[in-house]
Amino acid sequence: MDYFEQRIDRDDKYHGIIVDVHLDNVRLSDGSKAKREVVEHPGGVTILPVDEAGNCYMVRQFRYPAGHMMLEAPAGKLEYGEDHRECAVRELSEETGFTADELIYLGGFYTSPGFSSELLHVYLALGLHAGESHLDEGEFLNVEKHSLQALEQMIMNNEIEDAKTIIAVLKAEKVLKDRVKE
Amino acid sequence: MDYFEQRIDRDDKYHGIIVDVHLDNVRLSDGSKAKREVVEHPGGVTILPVDEAGNCYMVRQFRYPAGHMMLEAPAGKLEYGEDHRECAVRELSEETGFTADELIYLGGFYTSPGFSSELLHVYLALGLHAGESHLDEGEFLNVEKHSLQALEQMIMNNEIEDAKTIIAVLKAEKVLKDRVKE
Repeated sequence: MDYFEQRIDRDDKYHGIIVDVHLDNVRLSDGSKAKREVVEHPGGVTILPVDEAGNCYMVRQFRYPAGHMMLEAPAGKLEYGEDHRECAVRELSEETGFTADELIYLGGFYTSPGFSSELLHVYLALGLHAGESHLDEGEFLNVEKHSLQALEQMIMNNEIEDAKTIIAVLKAEKVLKDRVKE
Repeated sequence: MDYFEQRIDRDDKYHGIIVDVHLDNVRLSDGSKAKREVVEHPGGVTILPVDEAGNCYMVRQFRYPAGHMMLEAPAGKLEYGEDHRECAVRELSEETGFTADELIYLGGFYTSPGFSSELLHVYLALGLHAGESHLDEGEFLNVEKHSLQALEQMIMNNEIEDAKTIIAVLKAEKVLKDRVKE
């Protein structure tokens, strides 16, 4: 199907710290017009670091839009023009101090494609080597170790409620199961 | 840990169609101040309708922020004050025409808790009965039937790139596997 929505013009509504918002007039495939409100986000990466014993290194942090602490996989925003694999290496080091022998790409996903351009790339990090973490100013992270199995249980019990973390854990579980079979 | 971020004041930056944006000054637990940019979203539901043969009914639609068509589970936004189970019943009917004998709650998740308040509730719909779909004006949806197994393969091949769909399929797969075991 060659359905498409073509931008006619754009009204810049907000230029912010993390996001910009614009309201576009678009032409639909049937020739009619519609408005599309878009939150522009630079995108980012999330990394699930798993050690040889099957333990994952997670961060617990306060999420102001949700109003509570959340357990999440390490993650960060892409800098302008940055390669997402390089971003994964940087964020893994900054948040956990680890370097990884192997970074396996688990795909990208849109967090909320109805209104947001945010695309997150997911990596599984194996062969971990300890180092020091370097937090950005104003970040208060707590690194916690949980087995992949325990995280899966927390996901099914709704104790983990962050999209990127649910996706990273459930995809990593399948990839690691397939590696054991080989 | 009783870390908390307390709002000091709020600057309303944008009042939009789907989202509002505000910039808050907050006090951190250590007494220091920071700014928090928040995209407010009403939240919504996503429903994975699975028939007795294991086929799922999905919608393919153009997503303007991504610039291409995406295969997704049926979904919709919460109306003000609406119960999310009632919203799931309504959206399932509107997008696929189905009613369901059983709606199993698979939990809620934040699509992007670093900057957005959007919380999506996930339902698995079983015992499907056909009816008519009623699309909102300007919606062009195509309902497609795919087996749960095929969807899982598309997720692992990165052909499905929508957060709610990945989460709904991978959680539903586990719940349905557990039901077979019982």
